[in-house]
Amino acid sequence: MADIDRLIKLLARLPGLGPRSARRAALSLLKKRESLMEPLAQALAAAASSIKACSQCGNLDDIDPCLICQDEKRDNSLICIVEDVADLWALERTGSYKGRYHVLGGVLSALDGIGPEDLNIGTLVDRVGAGGVGEVILATNVTVDGQTTAHYITDRLASSGVKITRLAHGVPVGGELEYLDDGTLMTALKARH
Amino acid sequence: MADIDRLIKLLARLPGLGPRSARRAALSLLKKRESLMEPLAQALAAAASSIKACSQCGNLDDIDPCLICQDEKRDNSLICIVEDVADLWALERTGSYKGRYHVLGGVLSALDGIGPEDLNIGTLVDRVGAGGVGEVILATNVTVDGQTTAHYITDRLASSGVKITRLAHGVPVGGELEYLDDGTLMTALKARH
Repeated sequence: MADIDRLIKLLARLPGLGPRSARRAALSLLKKRESLMEPLAQALAAAASSIKACSQCGNLDDIDPCLICQDEKRDNSLICIVEDVADLWALERTGSYKGRYHVLGGVLSALDGIGPEDLNIGTLVDRVGAGGVGEVILATNVTVDGQTTAHYITDRLASSGVKITRLAHGVPVGGELEYLDDGTLMTALKARH
Repeated sequence: MADIDRLIKLLARLPGLGPRSARRAALSLLKKRESLMEPLAQALAAAASSIKACSQCGNLDDIDPCLICQDEKRDNSLICIVEDVADLWALERTGSYKGRYHVLGGVLSALDGIGPEDLNIGTLVDRVGAGGVGEVILATNVTVDGQTTAHYITDRLASSGVKITRLAHGVPVGGELEYLDDGTLMTALKARH
């Protein structure tokens, strides 16, 4: 049982899997050894050694600079600042943004002891300072820490004279007012147009 | 992106993970490369090559016969028949069963075209035929296919003269009558003691 137990314990540490679903996943893997288990082992090993943070924007990719930074069709004058790679992926899935990105790798958090030096902010100031950037879009999450981080970045970039914008807040498309939280509804009301 | 995309696609094929949670799992893995990602890759590769079905009972283990079959403290005269290794694990977690097991590897299913020859039934008949078995406990699930399989095995073992029992059906411990389905409640009423 040693090998199975070890596998289940590791699988249970994945977000979204508990002990029960880790056992189910382990059995499912053992039933699909050649089609899933071995390819997954190889994909994990390959990704662990090949994926690195892009030295320009902080995105994760197997090349450096990443594919997005290398894409010559993208607008160099626009940088969208996101907390995490997951947020970059979410924006990419919309297919409506054609500028560059900058991944902070987290947010400022007094509680977790995360200061500016722990985030990918120095390289952002350098990128903006190097010129050619017309607008920086702050797309940090609408949480206390996310907003604090956005304010901090606004201050840091103030001297550069670059235009700083934020994503619009309001009622989600397809959302029903009845189930919306008060904060969002208030923001949407204030920002009516 | 090729390596990440491949990893996410494979993770999304695990039961309990969809595309969204697979992306979250991939990012979480990339953040914990040394503590989780590399050990998981190794554990998967190790388990894929070492884990095999026990030739006696069909349980999955890295030794053959499996640890349970090798355990000399267990009662040889008792065999509990389960559909799947997950069911064996569930029974083992109760800590109250000290006999042997026999894992069928599925159930008879006309719909899925699964016949007796697809299940681990021949070895069961051989085990019982070899003598020394006093009781066979049918612990297949209470589904149409599970019950069909139980009936089929009862027929196959009829000539051996071995005692055949089933798990009791009734109200789950901690269950509330109000929320119980009619079938279970009816069974529990009939089997009152």
